[in-house]
Amino acid sequence: MTLHAAYDPANVFAKILRGEMPAVKVFEDDAVLAFMDVFPQSEGHVLLISKTSTARNLLEAEPGTLAVLVAATQRVARAVVKALCCDGVSVMQFNGEAGGQTVFHLHFHVIPRWADRPLKSHGQAGMADMDQLKTTAAKIAAALD
Amino acid sequence: MTLHAAYDPANVFAKILRGEMPAVKVFEDDAVLAFMDVFPQSEGHVLLISKTSTARNLLEAEPGTLAVLVAATQRVARAVVKALCCDGVSVMQFNGEAGGQTVFHLHFHVIPRWADRPLKSHGQAGMADMDQLKTTAAKIAAALD
Repeated sequence: MTLHAAYDPANVFAKILRGEMPAVKVFEDDAVLAFMDVFPQSEGHVLLISKTSTARNLLEAEPGTLAVLVAATQRVARAVVKALCCDGVSVMQFNGEAGGQTVFHLHFHVIPRWADRPLKSHGQAGMADMDQLKTTAAKIAAALD
Repeated sequence: MTLHAAYDPANVFAKILRGEMPAVKVFEDDAVLAFMDVFPQSEGHVLLISKTSTARNLLEAEPGTLAVLVAATQRVARAVVKALCCDGVSVMQFNGEAGGQTVFHLHFHVIPRWADRPLKSHGQAGMADMDQLKTTAAKIAAALD
């Protein structure tokens, strides 16, 4: 794995951050953007990215970036539990294509889980319905502390 | 998901922390213990736990605990890449039985990945050979910054 290759500013998340592509946002502040995964592995699948770092992955991240992202990840995980009454939450963070990463801008996945629903593989169910994503995002946003 | 049920001091990781059960350690300091998963999903599968917190999961964790754990997770992720020349790293953190959690003491998984090796499911390959785990742990420890 190459630890310090170049960040590609044409990646999808960079485009979302520059407003060149749409995203269904859950929340944002100066440091972090949380938005719905358009290829959700379950209902309420949220992605969290840094707005300030060009780290491609965990290995390249500045310590402050990581601390802020994991705190936001916790906040969103708590909100999905309250909003969606899920039975559990899987947090995943992939590094490198072999590690499961498809967009090379550091991100955390918050994936709500239910005992009676198997996890979908990424993209298995196709692209989500945008209106449904917006409804779910609003529910999660309303449950944020 | 019940957010604030009681921590069970008889869980396996609590026993490891009290020295009542063995673990193949990668490193430890005052706050964190990193040790080899005995049911590895790949070669070099490391677990990271807080030595001071009795949070059962991410949702219950104190902010400082999370920041320290994620920094240690990054340190170990970098070390596995250097030590094992893996192609990627998957970081996973499970909350609640439905979320994939089996031991109810907050922990992060660092799972080295190779392009040509599929991820094993937890426990699929049975318990790891202890001598092999010790050899791998020593390699990772030697690669820590």
